[in-house]
Amino acid sequence: MTAARYAVVAIGNAIVDIIGQCDDTFLARHGAAKGSMRLVDTPTIDTLYGEMGPAIEISGGSAANTMVGFASFGGPSAFIGKVANDEFGRIFRHDIGAAGVVFETPSASGKLPTSRSLILVTPDGERTMNTYLGISTDLDDREVDAATLETAQIVYLEGYLFDQPQAKAAFRQAVAIATRAGRTVALTLSDGFCVDRHRSEFLELIRSGVGILFANETEITSLYETSSFEAAARQAAADAPLAVLTRSAKGSLILANGESHEIPVDPVAKVIDTTGAGDLYAAGFLYGFTSGADLDTSGRLGSLAAAEIISHYGARPESNLGEIARARRLIF
Amino acid sequence: MTAARYAVVAIGNAIVDIIGQCDDTFLARHGAAKGSMRLVDTPTIDTLYGEMGPAIEISGGSAANTMVGFASFGGPSAFIGKVANDEFGRIFRHDIGAAGVVFETPSASGKLPTSRSLILVTPDGERTMNTYLGISTDLDDREVDAATLETAQIVYLEGYLFDQPQAKAAFRQAVAIATRAGRTVALTLSDGFCVDRHRSEFLELIRSGVGILFANETEITSLYETSSFEAAARQAAADAPLAVLTRSAKGSLILANGESHEIPVDPVAKVIDTTGAGDLYAAGFLYGFTSGADLDTSGRLGSLAAAEIISHYGARPESNLGEIARARRLIF
Repeated sequence: MTAARYAVVAIGNAIVDIIGQCDDTFLARHGAAKGSMRLVDTPTIDTLYGEMGPAIEISGGSAANTMVGFASFGGPSAFIGKVANDEFGRIFRHDIGAAGVVFETPSASGKLPTSRSLILVTPDGERTMNTYLGISTDLDDREVDAATLETAQIVYLEGYLFDQPQAKAAFRQAVAIATRAGRTVALTLSDGFCVDRHRSEFLELIRSGVGILFANETEITSLYETSSFEAAARQAAADAPLAVLTRSAKGSLILANGESHEIPVDPVAKVIDTTGAGDLYAAGFLYGFTSGADLDTSGRLGSLAAAEIISHYGARPESNLGEIARARRLIF
Repeated sequence: MTAARYAVVAIGNAIVDIIGQCDDTFLARHGAAKGSMRLVDTPTIDTLYGEMGPAIEISGGSAANTMVGFASFGGPSAFIGKVANDEFGRIFRHDIGAAGVVFETPSASGKLPTSRSLILVTPDGERTMNTYLGISTDLDDREVDAATLETAQIVYLEGYLFDQPQAKAAFRQAVAIATRAGRTVALTLSDGFCVDRHRSEFLELIRSGVGILFANETEITSLYETSSFEAAARQAAADAPLAVLTRSAKGSLILANGESHEIPVDPVAKVIDTTGAGDLYAAGFLYGFTSGADLDTSGRLGSLAAAEIISHYGARPESNLGEIARARRLIF
């Protein structure tokens, strides 16, 4: 096994977020389940955009956000995902590259545009996502660069990819390449409804070799079809060598080697927009973990990154996470 | 004179801002004068974008920001400006309309894209703008809708328009229409370098019938070619019936009828990005003024709006300004 060129390589949907504010009645009127992600078609996204308030555009995508957060800590990372050769594709490519993440997947010149997610933020800071996948559905196994994956310490995959047959194939190929090369596969379950759509396949994948499982409370209880977080956590600990479970305001729980570590949240003055909280928690955790920090410190780095991201709009950090972590003496 | 349909109609460049962070050495390396706006061509904007850090996209444009702020207070307003039929044009059109500003100028389907400004924000919160005008240069006198302008209480014009001969002609036509209809013409000087480029024409315009002059300290001292703010303010008071002069952290000065009103700033916990501070001050002032508030209250509404805008990235309000003003009992 050669030395890892990247600490983490992630595969995910390359998305530009269109973020606006709304109230709960707007979500209800448009049939959007608060806090979830749903896939929408062109007419639906056009209607929603036409009726939503003013918005701002910020590069997003779950695994992409995690890689940008990881790079903000100072970690070497790469991202694999598909954009079109259009304005949003150029925005996505610029932002992830400028953040220090290697992104070499070529842009597609087809008829589908770059993926976008209309993110509606309610006054409580909760985000509800309406995603039009566009060109993301074109990510296929040819895009999964074995040479890149083989030189990654960890291959990080987002569950959202399972929503498209082609991307799912790419996902499975990435797992095979990483496993063959002796690399660790990390999986984030992405969303409760997403878990509901692909429960048996996720379980099979986790049991067949996922080294690190990331999930929030909704996702892990959906996976194991139980209302008890504790019961779900026990099953996760049995199925994955390392399970990292986030619980919003209740902090997070890290389960490994028969031990459990409770990590507190990092308090923020005011929650503005929870978009990317889980993605950035994963970034901080992975940075600590791949740098040789203990699990508690890794979890605290996750909490720190999540706190930064929920204190403003968008899922990309506005501050250098490495500097914050050094000031807090969590890294040196 | 018929009743005004709009309290304010503004004409300006329709721009989408691309906002990122940088340090002072980055500005120096790229020859950008901190705090100013410069016009750049395609190769320059491409180079700058390629080298700047991750960015976010938010609709902007000086006069457009003012109209959105005005609408956020609850005032009826319209905007005239030119976008292309592209992704940024759709973003601009969505955002200004969703904010409640009437925007009926048709999109152009030419080869020039929608205008964009790369806004570089330094750690002190100061913004430096690099604007590629694109389709904005196509705004001409045919776009200046007399029917709209004639029904405006105030016609608000941004000095930046003077940088393009065609837009300058549209600007002059708007002044003629407004004057003929007995409406008040308001002018913002936009930028110190912009004043430097068009000093004599600005002076002629102001003396020939601008009812309300907005300028900051740099602009007004540039206009009268003096290093003394007090001397410049005296000349402004002689040239315009109402002069509204902003002085960043030193607050603002309103001069009318031989009287002067000093208005304090509205303190903010931390200045994040000064982009739009002047635009939003004008929004608050105009809302107070057109609602019949006294000059002191109008100035305080300006300070309130400026404080909201500098506390986050971008020049479009994230909070409802009318609600803030009512909570502060500045409006009822």
